[in-house]
Amino acid sequence: MVIVMKENATAQQISDVADKLHEFGLDVHQVDGVQRTILGAIGDVGSVDKREFEVMEGVFEVHRISEPYKLAGRTFHAEDTIIKVGDAVFGGDQVTVIAGPCSIESEHQLFTIAKAVKDAGAKVLRGGAFKPRTSPYAFQGMGEEGLKLLKAASQEFNIPTITEIMRENQLDICLEYVDILQVGARNMQNFPLLTELGKTRKPVFLKRGMAARIEELLMAAEYIMAGGNYQVILCERGIRTFENYTRNTLDISAIPVVKKLSHLPIVADPSHGTGIRSKVAPMARAAVAAGADGLAIEVHHDPDHAKSDGPQSLYPQQFARLMEEVRMIAWAIGRKID
Amino acid sequence: MVIVMKENATAQQISDVADKLHEFGLDVHQVDGVQRTILGAIGDVGSVDKREFEVMEGVFEVHRISEPYKLAGRTFHAEDTIIKVGDAVFGGDQVTVIAGPCSIESEHQLFTIAKAVKDAGAKVLRGGAFKPRTSPYAFQGMGEEGLKLLKAASQEFNIPTITEIMRENQLDICLEYVDILQVGARNMQNFPLLTELGKTRKPVFLKRGMAARIEELLMAAEYIMAGGNYQVILCERGIRTFENYTRNTLDISAIPVVKKLSHLPIVADPSHGTGIRSKVAPMARAAVAAGADGLAIEVHHDPDHAKSDGPQSLYPQQFARLMEEVRMIAWAIGRKID
Amino acid sequence: MVIVMKENATAQQISDVADKLHEFGLDVHQVDGVQRTILGAIGDVGSVDKREFEVMEGVFEVHRISEPYKLAGRTFHAEDTIIKVGDAVFGGDQVTVIAGPCSIESEHQLFTIAKAVKDAGAKVLRGGAFKPRTSPYAFQGMGEEGLKLLKAASQEFNIPTITEIMRENQLDICLEYVDILQVGARNMQNFPLLTELGKTRKPVFLKRGMAARIEELLMAAEYIMAGGNYQVILCERGIRTFENYTRNTLDISAIPVVKKLSHLPIVADPSHGTGIRSKVAPMARAAVAAGADGLAIEVHHDPDHAKSDGPQSLYPQQFARLMEEVRMIAWAIGRKID
Amino acid sequence: MVIVMKENATAQQISDVADKLHEFGLDVHQVDGVQRTILGAIGDVGSVDKREFEVMEGVFEVHRISEPYKLAGRTFHAEDTIIKVGDAVFGGDQVTVIAGPCSIESEHQLFTIAKAVKDAGAKVLRGGAFKPRTSPYAFQGMGEEGLKLLKAASQEFNIPTITEIMRENQLDICLEYVDILQVGARNMQNFPLLTELGKTRKPVFLKRGMAARIEELLMAAEYIMAGGNYQVILCERGIRTFENYTRNTLDISAIPVVKKLSHLPIVADPSHGTGIRSKVAPMARAAVAAGADGLAIEVHHDPDHAKSDGPQSLYPQQFARLMEEVRMIAWAIGRKID
Repeated sequence: MVIVMKENATAQQISDVADKLHEFGLDVHQVDGVQRTILGAIGDVGSVDKREFEVMEGVFEVHRISEPYKLAGRTFHAEDTIIKVGDAVFGGDQVTVIAGPCSIESEHQLFTIAKAVKDAGAKVLRGGAFKPRTSPYAFQGMGEEGLKLLKAASQEFNIPTITEIMRENQLDICLEYVDILQVGARNMQNFPLLTELGKTRKPVFLKRGMAARIEELLMAAEYIMAGGNYQVILCERGIRTFENYTRNTLDISAIPVVKKLSHLPIVADPSHGTGIRSKVAPMARAAVAAGADGLAIEVHHDPDHAKSDGPQSLYPQQFARLMEEVRMIAWAIGRKID
Repeated sequence: MVIVMKENATAQQISDVADKLHEFGLDVHQVDGVQRTILGAIGDVGSVDKREFEVMEGVFEVHRISEPYKLAGRTFHAEDTIIKVGDAVFGGDQVTVIAGPCSIESEHQLFTIAKAVKDAGAKVLRGGAFKPRTSPYAFQGMGEEGLKLLKAASQEFNIPTITEIMRENQLDICLEYVDILQVGARNMQNFPLLTELGKTRKPVFLKRGMAARIEELLMAAEYIMAGGNYQVILCERGIRTFENYTRNTLDISAIPVVKKLSHLPIVADPSHGTGIRSKVAPMARAAVAAGADGLAIEVHHDPDHAKSDGPQSLYPQQFARLMEEVRMIAWAIGRKID
Repeated sequence: MVIVMKENATAQQISDVADKLHEFGLDVHQVDGVQRTILGAIGDVGSVDKREFEVMEGVFEVHRISEPYKLAGRTFHAEDTIIKVGDAVFGGDQVTVIAGPCSIESEHQLFTIAKAVKDAGAKVLRGGAFKPRTSPYAFQGMGEEGLKLLKAASQEFNIPTITEIMRENQLDICLEYVDILQVGARNMQNFPLLTELGKTRKPVFLKRGMAARIEELLMAAEYIMAGGNYQVILCERGIRTFENYTRNTLDISAIPVVKKLSHLPIVADPSHGTGIRSKVAPMARAAVAAGADGLAIEVHHDPDHAKSDGPQSLYPQQFARLMEEVRMIAWAIGRKID
Repeated sequence: MVIVMKENATAQQISDVADKLHEFGLDVHQVDGVQRTILGAIGDVGSVDKREFEVMEGVFEVHRISEPYKLAGRTFHAEDTIIKVGDAVFGGDQVTVIAGPCSIESEHQLFTIAKAVKDAGAKVLRGGAFKPRTSPYAFQGMGEEGLKLLKAASQEFNIPTITEIMRENQLDICLEYVDILQVGARNMQNFPLLTELGKTRKPVFLKRGMAARIEELLMAAEYIMAGGNYQVILCERGIRTFENYTRNTLDISAIPVVKKLSHLPIVADPSHGTGIRSKVAPMARAAVAAGADGLAIEVHHDPDHAKSDGPQSLYPQQFARLMEEVRMIAWAIGRKID
């Protein structure tokens, strides 16, 4: 914590600030310049609200000098975290692709798509059973029935699975049927849910909220890790901006930024990141080129009749072509897609 | 739904679109201009995803022609909804002020503040028992103990209360101790929680998410109302923008916009909307001047030692002065604060 | 400038940073904590790019410790600047209203509106002669002919005037005919234009750009002031956000923020800030309640036939009613509208 | 233009709207549904402000049914525009790289960098002589002296050049010395400058403004093209969002969106798009993977002593390595870098 005092700060004000820093158990160093005084406090300020100092008399500015996260950051864990789920590997030199329908709709639908994406090279099968819908009148998912189908597809095609968990009381059932638990963008700061997930030992796929800064995404990961579950896969899925041609603005630059700040793998979701089928492939390629550890892609064999997100789902043949392209791009930057 | 075809759309493409509109049970009207054809579909398109048409061949643009919400909108309910909780009235010509500490910390703290805000004219006492904190290492609230204190303060000072509910399993306990249930900004699209609140008959105070469009705020209200609970008080608490001097940008214009689109009362929260004590009073005055039905203000008798949000809490005497100012402003625009 | 070194920074890296700070003529203080070293550099760092240090080896974070502006800030000029133009006063306890049509269209139009706004209490008459239009095919303004009408109206109704200047070569003509020169939002960072305006001694009305942070608005004022022209009136006119119901989000909180950081007067423009007639009055009231030194309002006697911005122009009677409301609000917060 | 009337709109209101549409010379079609009436107006509505209808009595919503741009859009010009400048080609299957220093500082500096970037495969040399700086106290560029050096470097290394023009009166001098005229982000809506550039026949490199929607970028191109200059190269250089880790958020998705809407080539500028050296290469690769027609990259042989933007400039060897990577990525998606 660095506290910059105003030019006309009094000795009393300076000492009040120093006292408050000491209250937090911090070591205080004072620098008296010609124009102004700066107080530097070194130590763990993890949960101190810097505004506590900003409102004090005589204070000009306050800066934190450390990240608020610990377990999620590279400072305390320099090496890349590598998460293995069956044959799928997140982190390292692999680029791993998750694919499948937005919603699980029927055995026929799920198996058809599962076969297609597995054949094209996907390593994890996705499928939603509990759907967060903006409208209370829209299709809300098949629930447990859907999870059973997902488990069956997993066994049939020998592929691990991922599904979104929306509420704490779905935890047991999700743990029973799937391999990776997804936290949706709207739940990125559902702290009770994150806390519960921290108690499990299954990998968590954590999507960035629409208005979340990268630091907040890492703090959400910290919630899970603070419970002892270190298997967190981050996901960039688009942020909300003034541009309204696309549904969201997929923040590709978050990929290299996260790679620098954190040891956790980061995956991109160009399907939700754009909301438009024809933009999914270009953005998937861009994400891999920028260094993403993986992709999450919605695929449907009959998107015109999909119960949700059909317009952003790729046809199986589009997905297969995309896999070829990203395979070459991965290779061009020294990575690989098995 | 209005579907604008491309200039070179074929007859087949036009008829495919018309067929798909019919599939949704919509009545289709076709307008053939010199340059292009437009298809107008009239009927209830509540849960149709317009992208389903945008991806069809030959389609240039798609526009919805009705709001996705019904119960929350003025179209089906023209008169202002008025919600009464004890002596507090939300809606109509009253401007009603909610005040109290961010977190309940002790009986002494809560009662001291409760007395001060009641004396100054607040009609509802706020106090958090379950705190959503960005850091897993920060104070998480007193829990049920805090709710008991809130109930005691309510009885002691004869004032109704509000607290934030963070998870579904807190519902019973919250119903037992408080009068209004608050949904925080991070939970605005926690659909399972909204659904549960829709089953109760207690007023819900619904805060706008940091990245939520006004339409989405109304859709979140719709979730609650679809369950039969029509007592929803909306709250503008700031949106996230590129401006970083303030924590959030309090969107004052949302107040007149919501008043036009919806019959539900709307309250402003300048404490979270700015995050800075010295900006709370100006923004509170602005909100009342713009037509807000109420204010929610954080007050603390000793903010330097508050366990959360001290830097944005008003001192009791600042709150009392603010009440005088907003009383006059309310009067200036033909409203009143009893 | 405060440079926080990484925990594992080497002595060489620390000394390289110190050397670079010395290169900029800064006084360097070193604080060696248990975990990391901090270098504090005190002195004038006005034009140093902090990224120059961020990219150095061993550097963790860099923070500036002073505003980049000087003349526009309160540090060097604590008292409010008061700008007088005829009977109009910007700054101090007055709230001053600028009103008039978006574009000057004809003598009849301008005189009709001028009379109406003057009668209702406006102190400055606005009218555009050079119009920045998003479309090259839209009405571009009457040019010098319009300015002559503005001058004539000024004399007829004894009211000072303001018009927008779009390019440097319009300066002479504008200086000849009008009293205040307006810089539009799109030109807030047209640095050559700002530099030219800095050489004049006429008041400049500087509108905040759609994507400009408050600091950048003050830096744009600094450009003008660096040339010796200290008469700058700032204007908040809405920023661009993801909310698309309103054209822009009028950032009311910028008003108290600017009042704290700068001694320059700040005016709000709710007409462009919302783009919707029915939202102009609520936002105008909000701006005055938040402490604005003035308002700029578009008024038209026949907005249905206005050549630009008719939909956001008030009718004269609406403007007169608004003046009554803001007069009372100004009084409620201890200010006045003569 | 599609006008959706309110459910309770009167016959008079409907006919008023129809009359107003006729005033604009539009052909009106009326669809009477059970619940409401829709008016469709087909024709050229290029410069009609849709709010003119939104404020009319009985109107619920208004939608435009055509883009406001014509010359810049694919509707009227389906084939890709290809712009040739010496050996450089923008558009088609080539990916063309512009590189060079932010500011021209000396002959030694410029020639050193020019040789390096040409050797690595850049096809156009960039260099700023007139610098738009946020601070009036910062280096403002070498002016004409710089342009002379740029011309000399162009001849020495046989490479065409680009420089930024900031004001109209720099046009003649820029035309004399350089091959492509750049319009900076802050000038994207400097309409007088765009108009002047429309009168020349030199290619214009038009950067997207920080808060500009894609549609507005295309409208700015329209300004230039309306003057008869069809050689416009668009440039995505980052938009302003709430994320503050990067200077701007490079909107990679704008690349495929622009490719669909417009026939003009689009180039990405990852240097300004991120503002951080270590993020330039990943984002450059991403842009090419997403389909960009080119890149604009800042390179400096001694960035620690650059007079501007050193921290975002690549070292020559980093640039050379990046060229190898993007060459392979271009090839992976069926394009090429000669």
